[in-house]
Amino acid sequence: MSGPTIDRRGLLGAGVATAAALGISGVAMGEGAVLAPGVRKADLAAALQAFRGVVGDEWVAGNAGSLKPWSKSYTPDPSGRHAPVGAVCPDSVEQVQAILKIANQYRQPLWPVSTGKNMGYGSTTTAAPGQVVLDLKRMNRILSVDVELCTALVEPGVTYQQLRDYLDEHNIPLWIDVPTVGPIVGPVGNTLDRGVGYTPYGDHFMVQCGMEVVLADGEILKTGMGSTKNPSAWQAFKWGYGPYLDGIFTQSNFGVVTKMGLWLMPAPPVYKPLVVRHKKVEDVARIVDAMRPLRIANIVPNVVLMMGAAYQLAMFHRRGEVYAGAGPVPEAAFAEFAAQHDLGMWNTYIALYGTSAQVAESERIVRAAFAAIDGEVMTEDQMQGNPWFHHHATLMRGGLSLEEVGLARWKGSGGGLAWFAPVAPAKGSETQGQIDLAHQILAKYGFDYTAAFAIGMRELHHIIALLYDKSDPEEEKRADACYRELVTGFGDRGWASYRTGVHAMDLVAAQYGETNRAVNAAIKQALDPNHILAPGKSGIA
Amino acid sequence: MSGPTIDRRGLLGAGVATAAALGISGVAMGEGAVLAPGVRKADLAAALQAFRGVVGDEWVAGNAGSLKPWSKSYTPDPSGRHAPVGAVCPDSVEQVQAILKIANQYRQPLWPVSTGKNMGYGSTTTAAPGQVVLDLKRMNRILSVDVELCTALVEPGVTYQQLRDYLDEHNIPLWIDVPTVGPIVGPVGNTLDRGVGYTPYGDHFMVQCGMEVVLADGEILKTGMGSTKNPSAWQAFKWGYGPYLDGIFTQSNFGVVTKMGLWLMPAPPVYKPLVVRHKKVEDVARIVDAMRPLRIANIVPNVVLMMGAAYQLAMFHRRGEVYAGAGPVPEAAFAEFAAQHDLGMWNTYIALYGTSAQVAESERIVRAAFAAIDGEVMTEDQMQGNPWFHHHATLMRGGLSLEEVGLARWKGSGGGLAWFAPVAPAKGSETQGQIDLAHQILAKYGFDYTAAFAIGMRELHHIIALLYDKSDPEEEKRADACYRELVTGFGDRGWASYRTGVHAMDLVAAQYGETNRAVNAAIKQALDPNHILAPGKSGIA
Repeated sequence: MSGPTIDRRGLLGAGVATAAALGISGVAMGEGAVLAPGVRKADLAAALQAFRGVVGDEWVAGNAGSLKPWSKSYTPDPSGRHAPVGAVCPDSVEQVQAILKIANQYRQPLWPVSTGKNMGYGSTTTAAPGQVVLDLKRMNRILSVDVELCTALVEPGVTYQQLRDYLDEHNIPLWIDVPTVGPIVGPVGNTLDRGVGYTPYGDHFMVQCGMEVVLADGEILKTGMGSTKNPSAWQAFKWGYGPYLDGIFTQSNFGVVTKMGLWLMPAPPVYKPLVVRHKKVEDVARIVDAMRPLRIANIVPNVVLMMGAAYQLAMFHRRGEVYAGAGPVPEAAFAEFAAQHDLGMWNTYIALYGTSAQVAESERIVRAAFAAIDGEVMTEDQMQGNPWFHHHATLMRGGLSLEEVGLARWKGSGGGLAWFAPVAPAKGSETQGQIDLAHQILAKYGFDYTAAFAIGMRELHHIIALLYDKSDPEEEKRADACYRELVTGFGDRGWASYRTGVHAMDLVAAQYGETNRAVNAAIKQALDPNHILAPGKSGIA
Repeated sequence: MSGPTIDRRGLLGAGVATAAALGISGVAMGEGAVLAPGVRKADLAAALQAFRGVVGDEWVAGNAGSLKPWSKSYTPDPSGRHAPVGAVCPDSVEQVQAILKIANQYRQPLWPVSTGKNMGYGSTTTAAPGQVVLDLKRMNRILSVDVELCTALVEPGVTYQQLRDYLDEHNIPLWIDVPTVGPIVGPVGNTLDRGVGYTPYGDHFMVQCGMEVVLADGEILKTGMGSTKNPSAWQAFKWGYGPYLDGIFTQSNFGVVTKMGLWLMPAPPVYKPLVVRHKKVEDVARIVDAMRPLRIANIVPNVVLMMGAAYQLAMFHRRGEVYAGAGPVPEAAFAEFAAQHDLGMWNTYIALYGTSAQVAESERIVRAAFAAIDGEVMTEDQMQGNPWFHHHATLMRGGLSLEEVGLARWKGSGGGLAWFAPVAPAKGSETQGQIDLAHQILAKYGFDYTAAFAIGMRELHHIIALLYDKSDPEEEKRADACYRELVTGFGDRGWASYRTGVHAMDLVAAQYGETNRAVNAAIKQALDPNHILAPGKSGIA
């Protein structure tokens, strides 16, 4: 039953993090930190001390200086309640188990992160005060890649870059699907957050297959086919037998995922990226209505990004370059920028994959659909030298890019970014009302509408980058208030978020009703009775 | 935010079941029945009486005569422990809530079924003794069909036939995906059992979107986007926010699903069914290896069935027509039959969907792949008049057929059928060993190997129909023993089942390890502390 699985357990050297690289410079306990409810200062100190016994002094951080790498975030935190009080970096499942045992003993809550780089959602900061980051980035082994099945099994610390390099080094003709800032984030963390990418495998949770989860009591659960006697189907078949459990470990605090399987896309013979340009913001409804049937019929197989001109601009430019005023940048300024840079007010990036004949036929259908609504369909040749096209052409083949990090510097070097991501059905009728509401709320707080829409399969993600200057405490406060009004304002109209940062998890959870929360609370109580795993995550105490 | 949703709430007349149609002929309580643990005869009687107060006398059954429609099953039950002790048929969510309240009061377990026709998996019989069937077939409203999003929201009693008729009556160009015996089963029950069909939407749970679940305490949970303020995305976006819960209500006893959303496939411009014939049983490995990359690259987009000659024969013929001996039918007899009826020993049914150009290109690729391994690719024209081709050509476009019911009469009119369905990765190397093991175990008990393989995406389902004569008590006993040896024999080699009947749920659950069971038990205890919902389902008490 074995295939040509390449086992890399223990073979990796280059990827192993060092204490220095992680920025750990001290190991004293957190002084003056806000503790978790019911945890005394002595408990935290004792827990940190016990963690040192498990992972070694150099892999535990507990004072303000040593904690710096885990305290930085782009999301608003005006009252400083999201900073962790410690960090511990295990290297193995056994160490994770030992850490959980200690956490249970002292009731010290842990905040598990994989690579901890979900910028704009909180990085390694925590949903509630007083938590110790359980940083899994040292567990970065690519455990297997099955070339026939087009699957991989990886640990939480594995980055997309590492996986890409591994495939390249072994001449394996498989593609990965990356989210923004792919080089520094990884499949486990992004999938557990239910992140989305740009290729036909863009719905990461949909193409996830099999998990290993360390439960709060230290027991190891392997989901799906993982606990069968010869688990050769662990990465082949998602559902297993009985209740399908993987879902409850996503956007969740019910367990620590230490291994995850994922499906990879076979490299297609031909790849053809395209952009469809539209000149007016008001075209948005027509674009969504034209795209929906193409997505549902799989003519356009990838997750489609409709990038607004302002978002495109903010990727590579600073606000001061286009506008010096205090309030939101006027739309005319964005329009001028777009015209100057061969961009539309909407730039809809799609890609075709397959044999030349398949790609040609899909292109014919796509061109007909967009000709009918005044969309300009542009090819790679036509967009030669255009950095935005190049960026998306890279992403839609699973290529790696850090270019969007620039967004966080739109308003200054302080690095302020919070993603607001409400979901609607993929219908044109759902678009303009959202745009108007977003403009209205953002303008009230003095922020720009820098946004995109993404069409998954039947759903429309509205992806709004709330960009602010975090070095300005007043502006951080304003960004926090603005975000909260976005959540409730959109929520009141039925547009609830699919994901949010540590600063708004409770608020977003509230958009999903009390029964949902009660069920989550009951499962939490059953699986983690001491609430040591990430209390506050997704609004679950 | 509203689309052209067609609301059929209350509009359906034709589909409403009547007491007479359900075969309820008496309402006295079960006499001499095996009760559930801890339930006294008086509790059951009181519960049944209280149920009558909720749904009316005519919708409760409690004696052997009136229970007949719920006591019949095709799966082996030599000791009679799977027959229910009552049945209650609510017509609304409110009635379901009232019934659960009563069940909690008397600790009387309930066995929820949707249409109750999962032949070969137990129909309406129960995993453990003493349960009252909670039969939801009267809740058969098609609540909405969204033509733009290609989605539907239905109740548990809605059959595939009813949904197909509805789409036809309204000229809605959407396809459904049906399992075997589609006309009498429905999307809710089949999806909750994680059943599989034949089109590109064949993985029913994958294309499920949003549920309403009545929890054991009567609370109503709407999953995904269902509890947002204006749940227009309920059938558009599967995941919602926070832990994804839908999965834990599949193959489960954690709640009663009373509404379910599903995605429908837009009717393609061109549909082209094909069969690939192979002459030798030993070709199996080559077929799987040729098919896997076509499936993963979506060249062949549908769930592929590789039908063995014996299975094909058993659909339309009785055993006595080909062989009079006592032991298994010799392979030569199946080969002779196949040759006579234009069939191969393997008949691999695939279909192509799209524009003519898309279909032509896919056909070119498929033909090249199978030419390389001596497969004969045959079209509809070439197979004109062949009932097997016609059957599968119907299924692969979501067409309805009851033809496979004939399987249950292979060995006599007693109607004995138990599906055994182990899962492996879709690799040729996984096939022959399974076939040899199946032959060995089946022959030991005197049964035929009537089987197919199905290739989902990366997984291979081995679908073995254990066909026996249930009117012969000795043979029923043998079938039971044989099935159990199949489960453990395959399980020991790592081939665990993705689904099983009420007679073997505990045994199959045991193949998935103790931690899995402990997690399920903990969630069960949290959500249904009195264990009133289907104890024994999927091995969960």
